[in-house]
Amino acid sequence: MQVITSKENPLIKQICKLKEKKYRNEYGQYLVEGVKLVKEAIEEKADIKHIVINEEMKETGLIEKHLKNGLQTNEFIQVPNSIFKWISEVENPQGILAVIQKKSEKVQIDYSQDIILALDDIQDPGNLGTIIRTADSIGLKQILLSKGTADPYNSKVIRSTMGAIFRVRLVECENFVQMLKACQENKYSILVTSLDTKQSIYDLTLKRKVIVIGNEANGVSKKVLEIADQKVTIPMLGKTESLNASVATGVILYEYVRQNFFMKNKANGKK
Amino acid sequence: MQVITSKENPLIKQICKLKEKKYRNEYGQYLVEGVKLVKEAIEEKADIKHIVINEEMKETGLIEKHLKNGLQTNEFIQVPNSIFKWISEVENPQGILAVIQKKSEKVQIDYSQDIILALDDIQDPGNLGTIIRTADSIGLKQILLSKGTADPYNSKVIRSTMGAIFRVRLVECENFVQMLKACQENKYSILVTSLDTKQSIYDLTLKRKVIVIGNEANGVSKKVLEIADQKVTIPMLGKTESLNASVATGVILYEYVRQNFFMKNKANGKK
Repeated sequence: MQVITSKENPLIKQICKLKEKKYRNEYGQYLVEGVKLVKEAIEEKADIKHIVINEEMKETGLIEKHLKNGLQTNEFIQVPNSIFKWISEVENPQGILAVIQKKSEKVQIDYSQDIILALDDIQDPGNLGTIIRTADSIGLKQILLSKGTADPYNSKVIRSTMGAIFRVRLVECENFVQMLKACQENKYSILVTSLDTKQSIYDLTLKRKVIVIGNEANGVSKKVLEIADQKVTIPMLGKTESLNASVATGVILYEYVRQNFFMKNKANGKK
Repeated sequence: MQVITSKENPLIKQICKLKEKKYRNEYGQYLVEGVKLVKEAIEEKADIKHIVINEEMKETGLIEKHLKNGLQTNEFIQVPNSIFKWISEVENPQGILAVIQKKSEKVQIDYSQDIILALDDIQDPGNLGTIIRTADSIGLKQILLSKGTADPYNSKVIRSTMGAIFRVRLVECENFVQMLKACQENKYSILVTSLDTKQSIYDLTLKRKVIVIGNEANGVSKKVLEIADQKVTIPMLGKTESLNASVATGVILYEYVRQNFFMKNKANGKK
């Protein structure tokens, strides 16, 4: 365990910089904070560069008891509470955070699953994190992200994923439309949500589809609409015009789950 | 149009107090901010006490053109930008907010709909607002709120509802369990989400149900579990253990929509 007591230490300064997107991109690293998320990072074998703890965390014995297995001693850095508070992005820090190396970004798409989720400029970090969590809940292994999507390594996104960030591969697309076309060449059809159609998600068989979720305010972008194979709507029965982006994603992904895993149960066994 | 230029004006001071829950309860009033929400408040005939605008908003002519119909001149208060900024709860205020009188709270439950949504200590304002929006999207007219639920008149909740706050009746329950029992007496069964059952939402017919959504961290409370008629789970196919509360609500409410409005479409017309 390395003990650092100065804010001027270059490593501490570098870690602190990871709160900004610019430096997360430069170093290819990001921060996750809190006992639960750090535990998940270890369990999911994320590429942990350092674990920073404060004095109070040291005293709990949690590190010795639960977290040290398989990790190198020199990955741990202990700092005074004041420095921890300075690095931390939450109001009441638990006293533990990890610096994680992003996976080397293969731009390749995995065509092994029936559904590919693609996000077209989702802006709200809470929505983005919740969508990643929802995708993981149905076992999706990847999500395609357009260039205008919020940074998935932002701390608010990571908190909202509840650990799913370590399991779902995020494909940040330089050219989103090109990636969608590649999916088409691999026999997926591009499905976009729209207010401008009568075809509901319940009229479709959700197989071999790319589901594109549009920006919170503007919906799916024009470029994507132009190459889309199918427009589909989630029926609105009240006066509200649209759903929150993460709720819409959940409704569509779980319609896929129902169709593919629960159609048999529907025929009989109703209560 | 009344013009007020002093922060010490008693009306301005009272309006400013409405940012705190304590005073929202005391005065029975709350604030909504931004052009879109204020327009919705007018359209939905919310009980508007005052509309506060800044000088810039006055100059846009928006008030004369669009908002004045049916409103009294003396409902408008113009203040300097500096005072507006002081009242406002957003970083870049649009320069318009409304003071609205809460509906007199009848504790009576409306038993006219097939589904009653009940929230058991939902804590996150974003979740609460999104749930209200989702309920309105399927035409639900009311939601029951346990005492430990976040204040629905908090500004973040109101923004997340996207206007649904003016349409959905919120029944704040002094005694949540008693209210649920009253629903049972009116032939509803109480449905709780739980990780502790194999019965999925796709195994049930969602008719005459109270759907209880539990707290984000702790789920449905023990008192409610004790009187529940059915436990049900949303299937988790990945490693994520649970869904975000608003996504879970959306998945269940739209399963109700599918069962009740789209079962015919399912049999034929698949694409």
